[in-house]
Amino acid sequence: MADLTLTTFDWVPEPPRGFVRDLRIRWALEEAGLPYRVASVPFGDRNADHFAHQPFGQVPWLTDGDLSIFESGAILLHLGGLSAALMPRDSRGRSEAVEWLFAALNSVEMASLPWTMFKFMGTDDGSPAVKFVDDFLTLRLKHIEAVLAQREWLAGSFSVADILMSDVLRVVDRFGGLAAHPASRAYVARATTRPAFAKAHADQMAHFAAADKNREKS
Amino acid sequence: MADLTLTTFDWVPEPPRGFVRDLRIRWALEEAGLPYRVASVPFGDRNADHFAHQPFGQVPWLTDGDLSIFESGAILLHLGGLSAALMPRDSRGRSEAVEWLFAALNSVEMASLPWTMFKFMGTDDGSPAVKFVDDFLTLRLKHIEAVLAQREWLAGSFSVADILMSDVLRVVDRFGGLAAHPASRAYVARATTRPAFAKAHADQMAHFAAADKNREKS
Repeated sequence: MADLTLTTFDWVPEPPRGFVRDLRIRWALEEAGLPYRVASVPFGDRNADHFAHQPFGQVPWLTDGDLSIFESGAILLHLGGLSAALMPRDSRGRSEAVEWLFAALNSVEMASLPWTMFKFMGTDDGSPAVKFVDDFLTLRLKHIEAVLAQREWLAGSFSVADILMSDVLRVVDRFGGLAAHPASRAYVARATTRPAFAKAHADQMAHFAAADKNREKS
Repeated sequence: MADLTLTTFDWVPEPPRGFVRDLRIRWALEEAGLPYRVASVPFGDRNADHFAHQPFGQVPWLTDGDLSIFESGAILLHLGGLSAALMPRDSRGRSEAVEWLFAALNSVEMASLPWTMFKFMGTDDGSPAVKFVDDFLTLRLKHIEAVLAQREWLAGSFSVADILMSDVLRVVDRFGGLAAHPASRAYVARATTRPAFAKAHADQMAHFAAADKNREKS
């Protein structure tokens, strides 16, 4: 029996709310109907215990009994092992879900993360570096668009690969990056209208809103 | 019994030679002593069959019987399941290898890939975008340096996580990015003096050198 605790920050500023990566884990847990607790660590002062669980000082991490796991991809893979709602059980389906899990992170988010950071910081200044990242993301979106035009979910049925890929593309969409990619936009819409996403998103927003109230009191 | 074929490009220009990602897979296969064949696809003209195996038109991919797997992380995870030389067999060790496999890609290479591309293209122009990526990589290297100062290998014993992390850091080192990170440099040296790395590297270089000779003949 899994004994799951998800750790995220106690508070974050407004802009990343709804996009902090604990959402990916909440979403998977809700899809699977797995019971879990949510714990918090300070956003401001990250201590040695935090780094012992997450060596880059980031969130989330998940504990399952005495196992502590960081990296959203690794956590989703672990949860995939706990529920057929998150990962196909046949070897081909499982293999497809795993490769697309990596592809979401390493072929798409590797391009989209710097792109969204440049948008967010307003350093979208047409310099050669910005242009390189623009072109890198455009190329990756072209290929993922071709895939998503042909299938509902990446690995036959909904899986952790779709949680990651749609969450990565959702951030691109936030900054208008999917305007020319209708299949990708439809995929993000299809994924984010799932009740488990809505619950995970609402819970993350409520978690940080509660932190605001505690700050006001103190 | 595994029936393994690794597919890479038939030829690449000089600069990426020794760094094409099939090297990660060759290295793992050599560490495990698993027999494999190497197949080639055109670097120049990437057809529908190529995209059916690798939807982003990249390399490598691996076939194991009728299973075809893309993404170097997913391939290494698959190989980890085939050999204890690549992945600890206890659940804690396996979990650590998996999270560090993701961390190499998603916490370090996500910062180092744009950084190395900017270096390579000479767009290292001090613009805000370049500075953001510099700072992003510096922060990630600081944290991985602290980890590598404390341990020989990431997951207790040598694993696929070390293949990925050292290969990612090796590219940073190529452009002088590890000068202030002695533990990371020592780790790269420790990993790349392994006979399996030397064999994999020599085989990749020979593969592309043979392609040069074929081009001269034709």
